[in-house]
Amino acid sequence: PVFPQPILYSYFRSSCSWRVRIALALKSIDYETIPINLIKDGGQQFSEEFQALNPMKQVPALKIDGITIAQSLAIIEYLEETRPTPRLLPQDPKKRAQVRMISDVITSGIQPLQNLSVLKQVGQENQLTWAQKAIRSGFNALEQVLWSTAGKYCVGDEVSPPPVFLCHRFKVDLTPYPTISRINKTLMALEAFQVSHPCRQPDTPPELRA
Amino acid sequence: PVFPQPILYSYFRSSCSWRVRIALALKSIDYETIPINLIKDGGQQFSEEFQALNPMKQVPALKIDGITIAQSLAIIEYLEETRPTPRLLPQDPKKRAQVRMISDVITSGIQPLQNLSVLKQVGQENQLTWAQKAIRSGFNALEQVLWSTAGKYCVGDEVSPPPVFLCHRFKVDLTPYPTISRINKTLMALEAFQVSHPCRQPDTPPELRA
Repeated sequence: PVFPQPILYSYFRSSCSWRVRIALALKSIDYETIPINLIKDGGQQFSEEFQALNPMKQVPALKIDGITIAQSLAIIEYLEETRPTPRLLPQDPKKRAQVRMISDVITSGIQPLQNLSVLKQVGQENQLTWAQKAIRSGFNALEQVLWSTAGKYCVGDEVSPPPVFLCHRFKVDLTPYPTISRINKTLMALEAFQVSHPCRQPDTPPELRA
Repeated sequence: PVFPQPILYSYFRSSCSWRVRIALALKSIDYETIPINLIKDGGQQFSEEFQALNPMKQVPALKIDGITIAQSLAIIEYLEETRPTPRLLPQDPKKRAQVRMISDVITSGIQPLQNLSVLKQVGQENQLTWAQKAIRSGFNALEQVLWSTAGKYCVGDEVSPPPVFLCHRFKVDLTPYPTISRINKTLMALEAFQVSHPCRQPDTPPELRA
């Protein structure tokens, strides 16, 4: 069967959505964006229509080849298996393990603690401290891991699923993390990172565009 | 080079450690266990020696083929790539995507919110409610995902990295999750799940042994 162009359900400032947009851009896969605003209307991810599509009630979700996949890393692995070039994972299994370890540290060690619903539970006055603590503790580990794995990028000199996420709004000082900062800067110079950037999405509000 | 037997740094009741023990058992890989007690001595995962091994200060970590891999799903993917039989992931990329999506929901949607350090931050009196909320919200999603993916196991009829984790101590009623309960029961009957069980590890305290 011939499937229509993939559809990405995405929110401009969601880090996990950005991760998938980067992978799609690196692989030059054309897709349509359907914005899901996580704040508007009490959160559009909670609509019945979207829940039917992704019971996790989260973005991103990618409709592709007749199925819908949720969870950014599962999506990226699927793209890698079905559209292998250019590759997003190194060829060497040991390096692949390192890429996955780094990605998992971010998606299961840092990000879950600072998503909207958790921050809401933590309460307005504690949010910043809570999020900063999670980010610092994750970055301390990540910086140390990168000492032994990094080349130009996180693992050697090949671009891999990026450890990018939007921590700017939590005002964490990045000075103690020179390796993370350097790699982030190098990645941000790549076109795939620029076109997929939160400030350049169909649902980016005019005042945040760049 | 010939590498020595793999070493698993593990804690008997850590769900992520159990997940890796199951994978090792399913693939009949012999390994040595070095127990890391997450509670004793203020948490043995915080020792300098262990931090040097795994900067994430978490179990499991697997020393294998000359490298150390942390994060349960990264470890399982590495085992699958280097010891492909018996397979832990289906052959069809779409089914593989579903397995990974389900695993990611658990490791990044549910577990991070109930690990020890987070519960400590939440405070003694709020812990149970907090953990129950995370588990119920994750299980609601998971149950719905499984309606469309499950056969005998989570995705079709092949065993895959199991969505097992130890939620018993948070006293969540599993009645609303018939599919999760059924699959869990089916998995628990398998030998690989029994030998790797928390109640049968080198570091299981006598009073919890079975």
